[in-house]
Amino acid sequence: MGEKMAFRARNPEQTRADILAAARVEFARLGLAGARVDTIADASGANKRMIYHYFGGKEQLFEAVIEEAYIGIRAGESELGLDEMAPTDALHALVVATWQYYLDNPEFITLVNSANLHQARHIAGNKQLRKLQKSYVERVAGILQRGEAQRKFRKGIDPVQLCITIAAIGFYYLTNRHTGGVLFGFNFMSRDALAKRLQFNLDTVMRLVLV
Amino acid sequence: MGEKMAFRARNPEQTRADILAAARVEFARLGLAGARVDTIADASGANKRMIYHYFGGKEQLFEAVIEEAYIGIRAGESELGLDEMAPTDALHALVVATWQYYLDNPEFITLVNSANLHQARHIAGNKQLRKLQKSYVERVAGILQRGEAQRKFRKGIDPVQLCITIAAIGFYYLTNRHTGGVLFGFNFMSRDALAKRLQFNLDTVMRLVLV
Repeated sequence: MGEKMAFRARNPEQTRADILAAARVEFARLGLAGARVDTIADASGANKRMIYHYFGGKEQLFEAVIEEAYIGIRAGESELGLDEMAPTDALHALVVATWQYYLDNPEFITLVNSANLHQARHIAGNKQLRKLQKSYVERVAGILQRGEAQRKFRKGIDPVQLCITIAAIGFYYLTNRHTGGVLFGFNFMSRDALAKRLQFNLDTVMRLVLV
Repeated sequence: MGEKMAFRARNPEQTRADILAAARVEFARLGLAGARVDTIADASGANKRMIYHYFGGKEQLFEAVIEEAYIGIRAGESELGLDEMAPTDALHALVVATWQYYLDNPEFITLVNSANLHQARHIAGNKQLRKLQKSYVERVAGILQRGEAQRKFRKGIDPVQLCITIAAIGFYYLTNRHTGGVLFGFNFMSRDALAKRLQFNLDTVMRLVLV
């Protein structure tokens, strides 16, 4: 144990990352109320004292996990090179990337639902996230403006509403995949069903913006 | 207490309804794991023994609450008279009614999220809900067919995907209203914001189906 702590002490960044990764899994599985710091400690190879040292407590750890999740999805978008693409291609790429992020990071959806259960108080006042979101909306607004200038997109589409809809049509499908599967009677997560949904979502967004 | 039980015994339907109403509130507030049968008993004026007598246990009570919530939204739709409306009017009415149901029954969204957290096992095998959902999809398919026959709607729109999208664009906005409010920096629940969202959703659905 002494050795382990000495090792950890030389790798604070790695320790922090290990704790965050274990916390993401635990919070996504059980929500804020159900998650246990002991479990996070065991899974991360850290101990409770280190978690309190690095983060301050369970609430702050949840804040850090939520922040990281949002930074992840926004970072992915900013790396797509949307500003350099033709407007139609850019929107297409954004719908695909949003969908793929949800599929690759299934815990993102559960974490966001959990954050909302707690009235988003864990991100309230987070200036970095607010700023990242602003950049995202501006990027989408830029795509819309270029499409409009090229007479390909309709005038006056609200970029904020469009951002919400691009998220909604993917997020809802995935978060409600269990009830949806029972009620509609098919497996929402089969390869065919996922491909069909993505195509429908692309059609929805394209028809919404194209003149 | 003896008097109370005697009174209740003469009104089994009312007792059952009172328990369900209290359970809906408690489950929506704390989810299945967090909800307490004692709280439901206190709030409903029933007692735990009666709850076990009527429903069997907390799990079965949750099943009954979820079932009732889905029956509620489907019953609302079936009363709209969609089959008698012009296709465009019918779709418009359906988008508005879905949105309004979510607004009038805020616990519906939390209950559905909770059901999905438990992999929908509380509705798995529920034939009544499966049947209601089938009627709903057939009603939407009928609207699409009539619109197509009148050359107003595009051919080949998948009614299941459309049903999912009509739910998604309203449900997501409302379930993520807290995080959305923080990130986008406006009150998602203001009268103006709600009106704007509904209009955007109507545009989205109409542009998706219209030729």
